[in-house]
Amino acid sequence: MEEEQVIRMDLCSSGKEKPQSDQLAFGRTFTDHMFLMDYTDEKGWHDPRVVPYEPLTVDPSAMVFHYGQSVFEGMKAYLTAEGDVQLFRPQRNFKRMNHSNDRLCIPPIDEAFALKAVKQLVALEKDWIPEAEGTSLYIRPFIISTEPFLGVAPSSHYQFIIILSPVGAYYKEGINPIKIAVENDYVRTVAGGTGEAKTGGNYAASLKAQEMAEEGIAQVLWLDGVERKYIEEVGSMNVFFKINGKVVTPALNGSILEGVTRNSVIQLLKHWNVPIEERKISMDEVYQAHKEGTLEEAFGAGTAAVISPIGELVSHHEHLEINSGQTGATAKRLYDTLTGIQYGKIQDPFDWVEKVEDIRQGTLRASG
Amino acid sequence: MEEEQVIRMDLCSSGKEKPQSDQLAFGRTFTDHMFLMDYTDEKGWHDPRVVPYEPLTVDPSAMVFHYGQSVFEGMKAYLTAEGDVQLFRPQRNFKRMNHSNDRLCIPPIDEAFALKAVKQLVALEKDWIPEAEGTSLYIRPFIISTEPFLGVAPSSHYQFIIILSPVGAYYKEGINPIKIAVENDYVRTVAGGTGEAKTGGNYAASLKAQEMAEEGIAQVLWLDGVERKYIEEVGSMNVFFKINGKVVTPALNGSILEGVTRNSVIQLLKHWNVPIEERKISMDEVYQAHKEGTLEEAFGAGTAAVISPIGELVSHHEHLEINSGQTGATAKRLYDTLTGIQYGKIQDPFDWVEKVEDIRQGTLRASG
Repeated sequence: MEEEQVIRMDLCSSGKEKPQSDQLAFGRTFTDHMFLMDYTDEKGWHDPRVVPYEPLTVDPSAMVFHYGQSVFEGMKAYLTAEGDVQLFRPQRNFKRMNHSNDRLCIPPIDEAFALKAVKQLVALEKDWIPEAEGTSLYIRPFIISTEPFLGVAPSSHYQFIIILSPVGAYYKEGINPIKIAVENDYVRTVAGGTGEAKTGGNYAASLKAQEMAEEGIAQVLWLDGVERKYIEEVGSMNVFFKINGKVVTPALNGSILEGVTRNSVIQLLKHWNVPIEERKISMDEVYQAHKEGTLEEAFGAGTAAVISPIGELVSHHEHLEINSGQTGATAKRLYDTLTGIQYGKIQDPFDWVEKVEDIRQGTLRASG
Repeated sequence: MEEEQVIRMDLCSSGKEKPQSDQLAFGRTFTDHMFLMDYTDEKGWHDPRVVPYEPLTVDPSAMVFHYGQSVFEGMKAYLTAEGDVQLFRPQRNFKRMNHSNDRLCIPPIDEAFALKAVKQLVALEKDWIPEAEGTSLYIRPFIISTEPFLGVAPSSHYQFIIILSPVGAYYKEGINPIKIAVENDYVRTVAGGTGEAKTGGNYAASLKAQEMAEEGIAQVLWLDGVERKYIEEVGSMNVFFKINGKVVTPALNGSILEGVTRNSVIQLLKHWNVPIEERKISMDEVYQAHKEGTLEEAFGAGTAAVISPIGELVSHHEHLEINSGQTGATAKRLYDTLTGIQYGKIQDPFDWVEKVEDIRQGTLRASG
């Protein structure tokens, strides 16, 4: 964007009814407005606007329906006890979105402008941010390819869209430990694939494993696609194991998504002088540690669930109980600290929090 | 579908202008009408209808935009010299669509009903089938997940849609040999992934390799994701090599798409008593054969291009010329025979052709 862009505001006259804080599910209710911006090869990203939340009109031949050229991000806005609105490291989400864009041949967005758009939209929809413990306003920026063309080639038209959804906890179980199954048949992605991009195809590929998993399995644990022995990540989270006092998480290898929560966990552990290793870790190592009694904790880390302790690992119908099925001290401390920072309850020593100013009116300017 | 379903017809009053036969591109123009059918968990597939071709209205939170839960198929309708309309083995496309549906956790379609829907739509749009040599009406059935929900889980709402596009040749070069690059960095999919399903994510993953390929490269040749040495397929085609009098094509291994043209090529070669092997084939074997002078031909096979001779293979900036860059005799014979059968110019000994009856009016009934 060469010139300063103004976000056009086209607001609806009356809002929808807001759900009760205690009845929130994840990702089923959306706020009154959304942000949109178009891309064409000729004009670049243009016409940023806030409009009433409504169905998109997309040509049946649009590439997103056929060849999956799309990316997305996920982050949250939190309401503090003082009534302030906070985002958590949103810059990293838009940086990652551009990384995903590169892998998917989607033109880059102006990260600073995208953040301003989020702030503008969230400020407008402030009344939609639920107040109850553990609730937040989920923010879903995404890009879809809209050129009406059936050739397999990057699209020349895109839409960048931001929608908002007031959410309760991602898992009904909350911070209680979940049961995870090691996936030995299906693969999410492989080195050279799209694993480190946040793109639909990775998630589409994951549905079958979840469907095949036994009753009570919250998510599956993905192994590498080549040797089928090294741990990659859990359904919608990165994964950590505490073995003999050290925390281990799979190193970024090109097929693992670089989670914002993952990075925050690593920084917190270092800050606390808890040994943390990013390296290859095999299921064999986890089995062995469990056998020797040194597998102290396992937990997932992601925006939706923040920290999910893993109480049980299932593989080939074998059940490994971890930490007697209880939430471990490290997982609990991470959860309390991360959510504490996010909700403004404890001090933020890392400058992770980004305040959303209370500007309900006016336009936003950004230079590109 | 428990009951007989009638396809509701909602036709437009005046049609669009049809493109000149000699100005047809691939997949850029669409006919006046399309077929739609909805799915909900409660009703199953319901409300089949033919309506004017127009943009779809889809909720911004629809799963297809975020998690890529979608499948598609591709086939063609051909106009014979006698004015008859023919399809080529369409049953296999809908069988494969259900195979893709299974992998993507999409509810199966009634294959016979889907075929009747195609015939009804193609018969209605008969005037859109171009007459010039090598042209046809491309048929794109696809299914998108439309539930407005951001959780990573199979959708409970889908749309099955069929759109039609009059097309010229897929490659501007026609039956002339194309240049293919061996892809050594990026991977399309891997065993345990979604490779044998026709789903958007596989194609999204392929865009980057094509973008990075040097000028003049028509498509890339994918190697297996594990050892990076065995040949899988070409961008939108299966691939065949003729080495020392024998034709070899990669065996179906779970990560290769089972092409309808691939299967037809194998049947034709067997019918002609040309040795054909479906087995693992490494790039090393191809290099070696080229060195020894026994690599006689290479060609791709797919619905869009039918047969594409490969005149040159590029890998790590090495250029392998095949058959002096000319179309080989086997490729030519396969192309002539397949297109001959498709256009009704030669006899169809395999019962591959499916006639479309000329019923412009009336409704279609099918029992599910």
